[in-house]
Amino acid sequence: MTGNATGPTVTDEVVASLHGTGDPRLRELLTGLVRHLHAFARESRLTRQEWERAIGFLTATGQACTDTRQEFILLSDVLGLSMLVEDINGHQAPGATESTVLGPFHLTESPVREPGADIDLVGGGEPCVVSGRVLSRDGTALPGALVDVWQADGHGFYDVQRPDAQPAGNGRGLFTADGEGRFWFRTCVPSPYPIPTDGPVGELLRATGRHPYRPAHIHFIASAAGHAPVTTHIFVAGSDYLDSDAVFAVKDSLVTDFAETDDPALAREFGVASPFRHARVDLVLERAS
Amino acid sequence: MTGNATGPTVTDEVVASLHGTGDPRLRELLTGLVRHLHAFARESRLTRQEWERAIGFLTATGQACTDTRQEFILLSDVLGLSMLVEDINGHQAPGATESTVLGPFHLTESPVREPGADIDLVGGGEPCVVSGRVLSRDGTALPGALVDVWQADGHGFYDVQRPDAQPAGNGRGLFTADGEGRFWFRTCVPSPYPIPTDGPVGELLRATGRHPYRPAHIHFIASAAGHAPVTTHIFVAGSDYLDSDAVFAVKDSLVTDFAETDDPALAREFGVASPFRHARVDLVLERAS
Repeated sequence: MTGNATGPTVTDEVVASLHGTGDPRLRELLTGLVRHLHAFARESRLTRQEWERAIGFLTATGQACTDTRQEFILLSDVLGLSMLVEDINGHQAPGATESTVLGPFHLTESPVREPGADIDLVGGGEPCVVSGRVLSRDGTALPGALVDVWQADGHGFYDVQRPDAQPAGNGRGLFTADGEGRFWFRTCVPSPYPIPTDGPVGELLRATGRHPYRPAHIHFIASAAGHAPVTTHIFVAGSDYLDSDAVFAVKDSLVTDFAETDDPALAREFGVASPFRHARVDLVLERAS
Repeated sequence: MTGNATGPTVTDEVVASLHGTGDPRLRELLTGLVRHLHAFARESRLTRQEWERAIGFLTATGQACTDTRQEFILLSDVLGLSMLVEDINGHQAPGATESTVLGPFHLTESPVREPGADIDLVGGGEPCVVSGRVLSRDGTALPGALVDVWQADGHGFYDVQRPDAQPAGNGRGLFTADGEGRFWFRTCVPSPYPIPTDGPVGELLRATGRHPYRPAHIHFIASAAGHAPVTTHIFVAGSDYLDSDAVFAVKDSLVTDFAETDDPALAREFGVASPFRHARVDLVLERAS
Protein backbone atom coordinates (compact mmCIF):
# COMPACT_ATOMS: atom_id res chain seq x y z
CA MET A 1 0.00 0.00 0.00
CA THR A 2 1.30 3.43 -0.91
CA GLY A 3 1.88 5.85 1.95
CA ASN A 4 2.27 9.57 1.52
CA ALA A 5 5.34 11.28 0.09
CA THR A 6 7.88 9.11 1.92
CA GLY A 7 6.39 5.70 0.96
CA PRO A 8 7.29 3.50 -1.99
CA THR A 9 6.14 4.72 -5.40
CA VAL A 10 3.50 2.83 -7.34
CA THR A 11 6.30 1.83 -9.72
CA ASP A 12 8.20 0.18 -6.86
CA GLU A 13 5.03 -1.63 -5.84
CA VAL A 14 4.32 -2.95 -9.33
CA VAL A 15 7.91 -4.14 -9.76
CA ALA A 16 7.74 -5.86 -6.35
CA SER A 17 4.48 -7.57 -7.37
CA LEU A 18 6.35 -9.30 -10.23
CA HIS A 19 8.71 -11.18 -7.91
CA GLY A 20 6.58 -14.32 -8.07
CA THR A 21 6.80 -14.59 -11.87
CA GLY A 22 7.77 -18.18 -12.67
CA ASP A 23 9.73 -17.45 -15.86
CA PRO A 24 12.77 -15.25 -15.05
CA ARG A 25 12.88 -13.83 -18.58
CA LEU A 26 9.21 -12.80 -18.37
CA ARG A 27 9.95 -11.10 -15.04
CA GLU A 28 12.88 -9.24 -16.62
CA LEU A 29 10.77 -8.11 -19.58
CA LEU A 30 7.79 -6.99 -17.49
CA THR A 31 10.03 -5.17 -15.03
CA GLY A 32 11.71 -3.24 -17.84
CA LEU A 33 8.36 -2.55 -19.51
CA VAL A 34 6.79 -1.21 -16.31
CA ARG A 35 9.80 1.00 -15.54
CA HIS A 36 9.78 2.53 -19.04
CA LEU A 37 6.00 2.87 -19.22
CA HIS A 38 5.90 4.64 -15.86
CA ALA A 39 8.91 6.82 -16.70
CA PHE A 40 7.17 7.86 -19.92
CA ALA A 41 3.97 8.79 -18.04
CA ARG A 42 5.91 10.73 -15.39
CA GLU A 43 8.21 12.59 -17.78
CA SER A 44 5.36 13.59 -20.08
CA ARG A 45 2.96 14.28 -17.16
CA LEU A 46 0.36 12.23 -19.02
CA THR A 47 -3.14 13.61 -18.39
CA ARG A 48 -6.25 11.51 -17.78
CA GLN A 49 -7.66 12.61 -21.14
CA GLU A 50 -4.48 11.57 -22.94
CA TRP A 51 -4.54 8.23 -21.13
CA GLU A 52 -8.16 7.76 -22.22
CA ARG A 53 -7.25 8.54 -25.84
CA ALA A 54 -4.40 6.02 -25.67
CA ILE A 55 -6.75 3.35 -24.27
CA GLY A 56 -9.20 4.09 -27.09
CA PHE A 57 -6.45 3.95 -29.72
CA LEU A 58 -5.08 0.61 -28.52
CA THR A 59 -8.59 -0.84 -28.33
CA ALA A 60 -9.39 0.25 -31.88
CA THR A 61 -6.06 -1.17 -33.06
CA GLY A 62 -6.87 -4.58 -31.54
CA GLN A 63 -10.35 -4.54 -32.99
CA ALA A 64 -9.05 -3.71 -36.49
CA CYS A 65 -7.15 -7.04 -36.54
CA THR A 66 -8.67 -9.84 -38.60
CA ASP A 67 -7.46 -13.10 -40.11
CA THR A 68 -5.91 -11.12 -42.97
CA ARG A 69 -4.94 -7.88 -41.27
CA GLN A 70 -2.59 -7.25 -38.33
CA GLU A 71 -2.95 -3.63 -37.23
CA PHE A 72 -0.65 -4.05 -34.19
CA ILE A 73 2.20 -5.22 -36.45
CA LEU A 74 1.48 -2.19 -38.62
CA LEU A 75 1.67 0.02 -35.53
CA SER A 76 4.97 -1.61 -34.53
CA ASP A 77 6.19 -1.02 -38.09
CA VAL A 78 5.36 2.70 -38.26
CA LEU A 79 6.90 3.27 -34.82
CA GLY A 80 10.13 1.65 -36.04
CA LEU A 81 9.90 -1.10 -33.41
CA SER A 82 9.77 -3.94 -35.95
CA MET A 83 12.94 -2.67 -37.65
CA LEU A 84 14.64 -2.20 -34.28
CA VAL A 85 13.85 -5.78 -33.25
CA GLU A 86 15.30 -6.92 -36.57
CA ASP A 87 18.45 -4.86 -35.92
CA ILE A 88 18.81 -6.26 -32.40
CA ASN A 89 18.48 -9.85 -33.58
CA GLY A 90 19.89 -9.69 -37.08
CA HIS A 91 23.34 -10.96 -37.95
CA GLN A 92 25.56 -7.98 -38.44
CA ALA A 93 28.82 -9.64 -39.45
CA PRO A 94 30.73 -7.50 -41.98
CA GLY A 95 30.07 -8.63 -45.51
CA ALA A 96 26.91 -10.60 -44.71
CA THR A 97 23.68 -9.38 -46.30
CA GLU A 98 21.90 -7.02 -43.90
CA SER A 99 18.47 -8.06 -42.71
CA THR A 100 15.29 -6.02 -42.67
CA VAL A 101 11.68 -6.52 -41.61
CA LEU A 102 9.64 -9.57 -42.60
CA GLY A 103 6.49 -7.51 -43.11
CA PRO A 104 2.94 -8.84 -42.95
CA PHE A 105 2.69 -10.43 -46.41
CA HIS A 106 4.97 -13.44 -46.16
CA LEU A 107 3.26 -16.82 -46.56
CA THR A 108 4.64 -19.91 -44.86
CA GLU A 109 4.58 -21.79 -48.14
CA SER A 110 5.67 -19.97 -51.27
CA PRO A 111 5.06 -21.95 -54.49
CA VAL A 112 8.09 -23.99 -55.54
CA ARG A 113 9.32 -22.73 -58.92
CA GLU A 114 11.93 -23.74 -61.49
CA PRO A 115 14.98 -21.50 -62.12
CA GLY A 116 14.03 -18.61 -64.38
CA ALA A 117 10.29 -18.92 -63.75
CA ASP A 118 8.26 -15.75 -64.21
CA ILE A 119 6.54 -14.92 -60.90
CA ASP A 120 4.49 -12.16 -62.55
CA LEU A 121 1.50 -14.35 -63.39
CA VAL A 122 -0.64 -11.40 -64.48
CA GLY A 123 1.71 -9.34 -66.65
CA GLY A 124 1.42 -5.68 -67.50
CA GLY A 125 4.32 -4.44 -65.35
CA GLU A 126 7.79 -3.57 -66.58
CA PRO A 127 9.54 -6.93 -67.13
CA CYS A 128 12.80 -7.61 -65.38
CA VAL A 129 15.23 -10.34 -64.43
CA VAL A 130 16.60 -10.81 -60.93
CA SER A 131 19.70 -12.99 -60.74
CA GLY A 132 22.41 -13.66 -58.24
CA ARG A 133 24.13 -16.13 -55.96
CA VAL A 134 23.81 -17.35 -52.42
CA LEU A 135 27.25 -17.29 -50.80
CA SER A 136 28.86 -17.96 -47.49
CA ARG A 137 30.65 -14.97 -45.99
CA ASP A 138 34.02 -16.35 -47.15
CA GLY A 139 32.80 -16.27 -50.76
CA THR A 140 32.03 -20.01 -51.03
CA ALA A 141 28.94 -20.72 -53.15
CA LEU A 142 26.06 -22.46 -51.35
CA PRO A 143 24.55 -25.02 -53.76
CA GLY A 144 20.98 -25.99 -52.94
CA ALA A 145 20.33 -22.84 -50.91
CA LEU A 146 16.65 -21.85 -50.76
CA VAL A 147 15.58 -18.39 -51.93
CA ASP A 148 12.04 -17.44 -50.93
CA VAL A 149 10.79 -14.39 -52.84
CA TRP A 150 7.65 -12.26 -52.59
CA GLN A 151 6.64 -8.87 -53.94
CA ALA A 152 3.70 -6.61 -54.74
CA ASP A 153 2.45 -6.39 -58.31
CA GLY A 154 2.79 -3.36 -60.60
CA HIS A 155 -0.21 -1.76 -58.85
CA GLY A 156 1.36 -2.10 -55.40
CA PHE A 157 -0.75 -5.00 -54.11
CA TYR A 158 0.17 -8.47 -52.89
CA ASP A 159 -1.88 -11.43 -54.10
CA VAL A 160 -3.55 -11.87 -50.70
CA GLN A 161 -4.78 -8.27 -50.78
CA ARG A 162 -6.50 -8.68 -54.15
CA PRO A 163 -7.68 -12.30 -54.43
CA ASP A 164 -10.17 -11.22 -57.13
CA ALA A 165 -7.51 -9.61 -59.36
CA GLN A 166 -4.46 -11.85 -58.76
CA PRO A 167 -4.12 -15.63 -58.74
CA ALA A 168 -2.78 -17.03 -55.45
CA GLY A 169 1.03 -17.16 -55.63
CA ASN A 170 1.35 -14.18 -57.93
CA GLY A 171 4.63 -12.42 -57.13
CA ARG A 172 5.84 -15.35 -55.03
CA GLY A 173 8.31 -18.16 -55.57
CA LEU A 174 10.55 -20.58 -53.71
CA PHE A 175 13.72 -21.15 -55.74
CA THR A 176 16.60 -23.56 -55.21
CA ALA A 177 20.11 -22.37 -56.02
CA ASP A 178 22.03 -24.50 -58.54
CA GLY A 179 25.37 -26.27 -58.04
CA GLU A 180 27.18 -22.93 -58.08
CA GLY A 181 24.78 -21.20 -55.71
CA ARG A 182 23.08 -19.35 -58.57
CA PHE A 183 19.38 -18.44 -58.73
CA TRP A 184 17.33 -16.32 -61.11
CA PHE A 185 13.74 -15.47 -61.88
CA ARG A 186 11.69 -13.16 -64.04
CA THR A 187 9.16 -10.70 -62.66
CA CYS A 188 7.95 -7.12 -63.10
CA VAL A 189 9.71 -4.14 -61.51
CA PRO A 190 7.84 -3.57 -58.25
CA SER A 191 6.37 -0.16 -57.49
CA PRO A 192 6.07 1.81 -54.25
CA TYR A 193 2.82 1.28 -52.35
CA PRO A 194 1.02 2.65 -49.31
CA ILE A 195 0.52 0.58 -46.18
CA PRO A 196 -3.19 0.32 -45.23
CA THR A 197 -4.47 3.69 -43.97
CA ASP A 198 -8.14 2.98 -43.27
CA GLY A 199 -7.51 2.00 -39.62
CA PRO A 200 -6.06 3.53 -36.44
CA VAL A 201 -2.50 3.44 -37.85
CA GLY A 202 -3.69 5.52 -40.81
CA GLU A 203 -5.11 8.06 -38.34
CA LEU A 204 -1.76 8.16 -36.58
CA LEU A 205 0.09 8.79 -39.85
CA ARG A 206 -2.29 11.62 -40.75
CA ALA A 207 -1.95 13.19 -37.28
CA THR A 208 1.83 13.14 -37.64
CA GLY A 209 1.86 14.45 -41.20
CA ARG A 210 3.54 11.29 -42.49
CA HIS A 211 2.87 9.63 -45.85
CA PRO A 212 2.10 5.89 -45.86
CA TYR A 213 4.37 4.80 -48.72
CA ARG A 214 7.05 2.17 -48.88
CA PRO A 215 9.73 2.44 -51.60
CA ALA A 216 9.66 -0.26 -54.29
CA HIS A 217 11.18 -3.53 -53.05
CA ILE A 218 11.30 -7.32 -53.37
CA HIS A 219 11.37 -9.49 -50.25
CA PHE A 220 13.81 -12.39 -49.77
CA ILE A 221 14.50 -15.08 -47.23
CA ALA A 222 17.69 -16.97 -48.09
CA SER A 223 18.64 -20.11 -46.17
CA ALA A 224 21.30 -22.78 -46.52
CA ALA A 225 22.60 -25.68 -44.45
CA GLY A 226 25.04 -24.64 -41.73
CA HIS A 227 24.16 -20.96 -42.09
CA ALA A 228 21.88 -18.46 -40.36
CA PRO A 229 19.03 -17.55 -42.72
CA VAL A 230 18.59 -13.90 -43.67
CA THR A 231 15.26 -12.08 -44.05
CA THR A 232 15.72 -9.00 -46.19
CA HIS A 233 14.53 -6.86 -49.13
CA ILE A 234 16.19 -5.41 -52.16
CA PHE A 235 15.03 -1.85 -52.83
CA VAL A 236 14.84 -0.45 -56.36
CA ALA A 237 17.52 2.26 -56.70
CA GLY A 238 15.92 5.60 -57.58
CA SER A 239 12.51 4.63 -56.20
CA ASP A 240 10.47 7.32 -54.51
CA TYR A 241 10.38 7.17 -50.70
CA LEU A 242 13.82 5.56 -50.24
CA ASP A 243 14.53 8.32 -47.71
CA SER A 244 11.17 8.11 -45.95
CA ASP A 245 10.02 4.47 -45.88
CA ALA A 246 6.86 4.41 -43.72
CA VAL A 247 8.28 1.41 -41.83
CA PHE A 248 11.97 2.52 -41.64
CA ALA A 249 13.25 -0.67 -43.30
CA VAL A 250 15.69 0.78 -45.86
CA LYS A 251 19.40 0.15 -45.45
CA ASP A 252 21.91 1.63 -47.88
CA SER A 253 23.44 -1.77 -48.63
CA LEU A 254 20.08 -3.12 -49.81
CA VAL A 255 19.43 -0.48 -52.48
CA THR A 256 19.94 -2.29 -55.77
CA ASP A 257 20.30 -1.08 -59.33
CA PHE A 258 17.58 -2.37 -61.64
CA ALA A 259 19.64 -1.31 -64.68
CA GLU A 260 18.32 -1.33 -68.21
CA THR A 261 20.49 -3.82 -70.07
CA ASP A 262 20.87 -4.26 -73.83
CA ASP A 263 23.34 -7.12 -73.82
CA PRO A 264 21.92 -9.52 -76.46
CA ALA A 265 23.92 -12.48 -75.12
CA LEU A 266 22.50 -11.96 -71.65
CA ALA A 267 18.99 -11.51 -73.07
CA ARG A 268 19.44 -14.80 -74.96
CA GLU A 269 20.72 -16.53 -71.80
CA PHE A 270 17.66 -15.39 -69.83
CA GLY A 271 15.25 -15.89 -72.70
CA VAL A 272 13.93 -12.31 -72.63
CA ALA A 273 13.70 -9.53 -75.21
CA SER A 274 16.51 -6.95 -75.17
CA PRO A 275 16.71 -4.34 -73.66
CA PHE A 276 15.45 -5.45 -70.24
CA ARG A 277 15.79 -4.37 -66.58
CA HIS A 278 18.23 -6.49 -64.62
CA ALA A 279 18.86 -6.59 -60.86
CA ARG A 280 21.87 -8.53 -59.63
CA VAL A 281 21.83 -9.55 -55.98
CA ASP A 282 24.20 -11.74 -54.00
CA LEU A 283 22.76 -13.01 -50.74
CA VAL A 284 25.62 -13.57 -48.30
CA LEU A 285 24.97 -15.72 -45.25
CA GLU A 286 26.82 -16.01 -41.99
CA ARG A 287 27.77 -19.47 -40.69
CA ALA A 288 25.42 -20.68 -37.97
CA SER A 289 27.06 -20.25 -34.58
CA MET B 1 17.50 5.61 -44.67
CA THR B 2 19.74 3.90 -42.18
CA GLY B 3 23.41 3.59 -43.05
CA ASN B 4 25.74 1.17 -41.41
CA ALA B 5 27.21 1.60 -37.93
CA THR B 6 27.92 5.31 -38.29
CA GLY B 7 24.49 6.37 -39.59
CA PRO B 8 21.49 7.54 -37.60
CA THR B 9 19.69 4.88 -35.56
CA VAL B 10 16.16 3.81 -36.41
CA THR B 11 15.09 5.63 -33.22
CA ASP B 12 16.55 8.89 -34.57
CA GLU B 13 14.74 8.31 -37.85
CA VAL B 14 11.37 7.69 -36.20
CA VAL B 15 11.72 10.76 -33.98
CA ALA B 16 12.66 12.84 -37.04
CA SER B 17 9.59 11.53 -38.89
CA LEU B 18 7.38 13.09 -36.18
CA HIS B 19 8.52 16.64 -36.92
CA GLY B 20 5.49 17.32 -39.09
CA THR B 21 3.00 16.50 -36.33
CA GLY B 22 0.48 19.35 -36.22
CA ASP B 23 -0.27 19.18 -32.49
CA PRO B 24 2.92 19.96 -30.49
CA ARG B 25 1.69 18.00 -27.46
CA LEU B 26 1.06 14.92 -29.62
CA ARG B 27 4.57 15.26 -31.01
CA GLU B 28 5.99 15.47 -27.48
CA LEU B 29 4.04 12.40 -26.36
CA LEU B 30 4.92 10.27 -29.40
CA THR B 31 8.58 11.26 -29.19
CA GLY B 32 8.74 10.22 -25.53
CA LEU B 33 6.84 7.02 -26.25
CA VAL B 34 9.12 6.03 -29.13
CA ARG B 35 12.26 6.76 -27.10
CA HIS B 36 11.08 4.66 -24.16
CA LEU B 37 9.70 1.85 -26.31
CA HIS B 38 12.95 1.59 -28.26
CA ALA B 39 15.07 1.85 -25.09
CA PHE B 40 13.04 -0.99 -23.58
CA ALA B 41 13.58 -3.19 -26.66
CA ARG B 42 17.31 -2.41 -26.74
CA GLU B 43 17.97 -2.87 -23.03
CA SER B 44 16.05 -6.14 -22.90
CA ARG B 45 17.37 -7.33 -26.28
CA LEU B 46 13.82 -8.23 -27.22
CA THR B 47 13.75 -11.30 -29.46
CA ARG B 48 11.50 -11.77 -32.49
CA GLN B 49 9.56 -14.48 -30.65
CA GLU B 50 9.00 -12.19 -27.66
CA TRP B 51 7.90 -9.39 -30.00
CA GLU B 52 5.44 -11.83 -31.65
CA ARG B 53 4.05 -12.84 -28.26
CA ALA B 54 3.61 -9.18 -27.34
CA ILE B 55 1.77 -8.49 -30.62
CA GLY B 56 -0.49 -11.49 -29.93
CA PHE B 57 -1.14 -10.36 -26.35
CA LEU B 58 -2.06 -6.80 -27.36
CA THR B 59 -4.30 -8.09 -30.15
CA ALA B 60 -6.14 -10.44 -27.78
CA THR B 61 -6.51 -7.59 -25.26
CA GLY B 62 -8.14 -5.36 -27.88
CA GLN B 63 -10.40 -8.15 -29.04
CA ALA B 64 -11.55 -8.91 -25.46
CA CYS B 65 -13.04 -5.40 -25.24
CA THR B 66 -16.82 -5.12 -25.58
CA ASP B 67 -19.46 -2.54 -24.72
CA THR B 68 -19.33 -3.71 -21.09
CA ARG B 69 -15.71 -4.76 -20.72
CA GLN B 70 -12.51 -2.74 -21.14
CA GLU B 71 -9.54 -5.11 -21.05
CA PHE B 72 -6.98 -2.38 -21.91
CA ILE B 73 -8.06 -0.35 -18.85
CA LEU B 74 -7.71 -3.55 -16.83
CA LEU B 75 -4.19 -4.00 -18.25
CA SER B 76 -3.34 -0.39 -17.38
CA ASP B 77 -4.71 -1.04 -13.88
CA VAL B 78 -2.67 -4.19 -13.15
CA LEU B 79 0.50 -2.51 -14.47
CA GLY B 80 -0.08 0.39 -12.04
CA LEU B 81 -0.34 2.89 -14.91
CA SER B 82 -3.89 3.98 -14.04
CA MET B 83 -2.87 4.71 -10.45
CA LEU B 84 0.25 6.54 -11.62
CA VAL B 85 -1.80 8.77 -13.96
CA GLU B 86 -4.09 9.53 -11.01
CA ASP B 87 -1.07 10.42 -8.88
CA ILE B 88 0.37 12.66 -11.58
CA ASN B 89 -2.90 14.53 -12.04
CA GLY B 90 -4.46 14.35 -8.58
CA HIS B 91 -4.50 17.29 -6.21
CA GLN B 92 -1.99 16.58 -3.51
CA ALA B 93 -2.42 19.59 -1.24
CA PRO B 94 -1.83 18.65 2.42
CA GLY B 95 -5.08 17.93 4.18
CA ALA B 96 -7.12 17.41 1.02
CA THR B 97 -8.59 13.93 0.47
CA GLU B 98 -6.22 11.85 -1.65
CA SER B 99 -7.47 10.62 -4.98
CA THR B 100 -7.34 7.12 -6.39
CA VAL B 101 -8.42 5.35 -9.58
CA LEU B 102 -11.87 5.78 -11.10
CA GLY B 103 -12.07 2.12 -12.09
CA PRO B 104 -14.23 0.70 -14.87
CA PHE B 105 -17.60 0.59 -13.04
CA HIS B 106 -18.53 4.24 -12.71
CA LEU B 107 -21.69 5.28 -14.57
CA THR B 108 -22.11 8.83 -15.85
CA GLU B 109 -25.49 9.07 -14.15
CA SER B 110 -25.83 7.63 -10.67
CA PRO B 111 -29.45 7.60 -9.40
CA VAL B 112 -30.29 10.71 -7.37
CA ARG B 113 -31.13 9.66 -3.79
CA GLU B 114 -32.40 11.34 -0.64
CA PRO B 115 -30.14 11.66 2.42
CA GLY B 116 -30.02 8.36 4.32
CA ALA B 117 -31.30 6.27 1.42
CA ASP B 118 -30.29 2.61 1.44
CA ILE B 119 -28.30 1.90 -1.72
CA ASP B 120 -28.32 -1.85 -0.99
CA LEU B 121 -31.47 -2.61 -2.97
CA VAL B 122 -31.06 -6.37 -2.63
CA GLY B 123 -30.14 -6.84 1.02
CA GLY B 124 -28.36 -9.78 2.57
CA GLY B 125 -25.04 -8.05 3.26
CA GLU B 126 -23.89 -6.69 6.61
CA PRO B 127 -25.79 -3.40 7.06
CA CYS B 128 -23.85 -0.23 7.67
CA VAL B 129 -24.10 3.53 7.69
CA VAL B 130 -21.64 5.82 5.93
CA SER B 131 -21.75 9.43 7.07
CA GLY B 132 -19.54 12.45 6.81
CA ARG B 133 -19.09 15.96 5.52
CA VAL B 134 -17.75 17.65 2.43
CA LEU B 135 -15.34 20.38 3.47
CA SER B 136 -13.03 22.91 1.93
CA ARG B 137 -9.40 22.53 2.93
CA ASP B 138 -9.73 25.36 5.47
CA GLY B 139 -12.46 23.41 7.28
CA THR B 140 -15.43 25.35 5.82
CA ALA B 141 -18.44 23.15 5.14
CA LEU B 142 -19.57 22.96 1.51
CA PRO B 143 -23.40 22.97 1.47
CA GLY B 144 -24.93 21.48 -1.67
CA ALA B 145 -21.79 19.51 -2.55
CA LEU B 146 -22.49 16.41 -4.66
CA VAL B 147 -21.35 12.98 -3.46
CA ASP B 148 -21.45 10.27 -6.11
CA VAL B 149 -21.13 6.77 -4.60
CA TRP B 150 -20.79 3.29 -6.11
CA GLN B 151 -19.78 -0.09 -4.74
CA ALA B 152 -19.94 -3.83 -5.33
CA ASP B 153 -22.58 -5.89 -3.52
CA GLY B 154 -21.90 -8.41 -0.75
CA HIS B 155 -20.88 -10.99 -3.38
CA GLY B 156 -18.30 -8.67 -4.95
CA PHE B 157 -20.22 -7.72 -8.11
CA TYR B 158 -21.40 -4.37 -9.45
CA ASP B 159 -24.95 -4.07 -10.79
CA VAL B 160 -23.73 -3.87 -14.42
CA GLN B 161 -21.87 -7.18 -14.02
CA ARG B 162 -24.96 -9.06 -12.84
CA PRO B 163 -27.98 -7.46 -14.52
CA ASP B 164 -29.97 -10.66 -13.84
CA ALA B 165 -29.27 -10.66 -10.08
CA GLN B 166 -29.19 -6.93 -9.26
CA PRO B 167 -31.56 -4.10 -10.23
CA ALA B 168 -29.86 -1.28 -12.15
CA GLY B 169 -28.57 1.31 -9.67
CA ASN B 170 -27.92 -1.20 -6.90
CA GLY B 171 -24.96 0.02 -4.86
CA ARG B 172 -25.10 3.48 -6.47
CA GLY B 173 -26.34 6.88 -5.40
CA LEU B 174 -25.88 10.58 -6.05
CA PHE B 175 -26.33 12.47 -2.79
CA THR B 176 -26.47 16.22 -2.09
CA ALA B 177 -24.82 17.52 1.09
CA ASP B 178 -27.09 19.49 3.43
CA GLY B 179 -26.64 23.08 4.64
CA GLU B 180 -23.75 22.01 6.85
CA GLY B 181 -22.01 19.92 4.20
CA ARG B 182 -23.28 16.67 5.71
CA PHE B 183 -24.22 13.53 3.76
CA TRP B 184 -25.14 10.01 4.81
CA PHE B 185 -26.47 6.79 3.34
CA ARG B 186 -27.11 3.20 4.29
CA THR B 187 -25.58 0.23 2.48
CA CYS B 188 -23.97 -3.14 3.14
CA VAL B 189 -20.29 -3.53 4.04
CA PRO B 190 -18.55 -4.19 0.71
CA SER B 191 -16.38 -7.27 0.30
CA PRO B 192 -13.13 -7.87 -1.61
CA TYR B 193 -13.55 -9.10 -5.15
CA PRO B 194 -11.43 -10.34 -8.05
CA ILE B 195 -11.01 -8.33 -11.23
CA PRO B 196 -12.05 -10.37 -14.31
CA THR B 197 -9.52 -13.13 -14.99
CA ASP B 198 -11.00 -14.89 -18.03
CA GLY B 199 -9.11 -12.70 -20.54
CA PRO B 200 -5.50 -11.83 -21.42
CA VAL B 201 -5.04 -9.82 -18.20
CA GLY B 202 -5.99 -12.90 -16.20
CA GLU B 203 -3.31 -14.86 -18.09
CA LEU B 204 -0.79 -12.16 -17.20
CA LEU B 205 -1.71 -12.33 -13.51
CA ARG B 206 -1.34 -16.12 -13.50
CA ALA B 207 2.04 -15.93 -15.30
CA THR B 208 3.27 -13.47 -12.67
CA GLY B 209 1.91 -15.40 -9.70
CA ARG B 210 -0.36 -12.52 -8.69
CA HIS B 211 -3.86 -12.83 -7.21
CA PRO B 212 -6.66 -10.80 -8.84
CA TYR B 213 -8.29 -9.39 -5.69
CA ARG B 214 -9.08 -5.85 -4.68
CA PRO B 215 -9.58 -5.06 -0.99
CA ALA B 216 -13.12 -4.06 0.07
CA HIS B 217 -13.91 -0.44 -0.85
CA ILE B 218 -16.57 2.13 -1.71
CA HIS B 219 -16.00 4.60 -4.56
CA PHE B 220 -16.66 8.34 -4.24
CA ILE B 221 -16.55 11.40 -6.45
CA ALA B 222 -17.11 14.57 -4.42
CA SER B 223 -17.60 17.92 -6.14
CA ALA B 224 -18.57 21.41 -5.03
CA ALA B 225 -18.67 24.89 -6.57
CA GLY B 226 -15.30 26.62 -6.62
CA HIS B 227 -13.42 23.43 -5.79
CA ALA B 228 -11.55 20.71 -7.68
CA PRO B 229 -13.55 17.47 -7.55
CA VAL B 230 -11.91 14.40 -6.03
CA THR B 231 -12.25 10.81 -7.29
CA THR B 232 -11.40 8.39 -4.53
CA HIS B 233 -12.30 5.24 -2.54
CA ILE B 234 -12.61 4.46 1.11
CA PHE B 235 -11.14 1.06 1.95
CA VAL B 236 -12.52 -1.09 4.76
CA ALA B 237 -9.89 -1.24 7.53
CA GLY B 238 -8.86 -4.84 8.18
CA SER B 239 -9.97 -6.06 4.73
CA ASP B 240 -7.91 -8.76 3.07
CA TYR B 241 -5.61 -7.57 0.24
CA LEU B 242 -5.04 -4.04 1.58
CA ASP B 243 -1.32 -4.69 1.08
CA SER B 244 -1.67 -6.27 -2.36
CA ASP B 245 -4.49 -4.54 -4.25
CA ALA B 246 -4.42 -5.98 -7.79
CA VAL B 247 -4.63 -2.42 -9.16
CA PHE B 248 -2.32 -0.65 -6.64
CA ALA B 249 -4.99 1.89 -5.62
CA VAL B 250 -4.69 1.77 -1.81
CA LYS B 251 -3.39 4.81 0.06
CA ASP B 252 -2.98 4.77 3.84
CA SER B 253 -5.10 7.87 4.31
CA LEU B 254 -8.07 6.21 2.60
CA VAL B 255 -8.27 3.17 4.88
CA THR B 256 -11.37 3.77 6.99
CA ASP B 257 -12.70 2.12 10.12
CA PHE B 258 -16.11 0.49 9.64
CA ALA B 259 -16.52 0.26 13.41
CA GLU B 260 -19.31 -1.67 15.10
CA THR B 261 -21.31 0.95 17.01
CA ASP B 262 -23.86 0.38 19.76
CA ASP B 263 -24.78 4.01 20.44
CA PRO B 264 -28.59 3.89 20.68
CA ALA B 265 -28.93 7.65 20.07
CA LEU B 266 -26.92 7.37 16.85
CA ALA B 267 -28.92 4.29 15.81
CA ARG B 268 -32.10 6.26 16.39
CA GLU B 269 -30.76 9.25 14.43
CA PHE B 270 -29.92 7.00 11.46
CA GLY B 271 -33.06 4.88 11.83
CA VAL B 272 -31.14 1.59 12.05
CA ALA B 273 -31.04 -1.24 14.60
CA SER B 274 -28.19 -1.11 17.16
CA PRO B 275 -25.43 -2.31 16.99
CA PHE B 276 -24.46 -1.38 13.43
CA ARG B 277 -21.28 -0.80 11.40
CA HIS B 278 -20.48 2.86 10.90
CA ALA B 279 -17.91 4.47 8.60
CA ARG B 280 -17.25 8.17 9.03
CA VAL B 281 -15.60 9.94 6.11
CA ASP B 282 -14.87 13.60 5.54
CA LEU B 283 -14.20 14.48 1.92
CA VAL B 284 -11.89 17.50 1.83
CA LEU B 285 -11.63 19.46 -1.41
CA GLU B 286 -9.04 21.87 -2.63
CA ARG B 287 -10.14 25.25 -4.03
CA ALA B 288 -10.13 25.31 -7.83
CA SER B 289 -7.07 27.16 -9.07
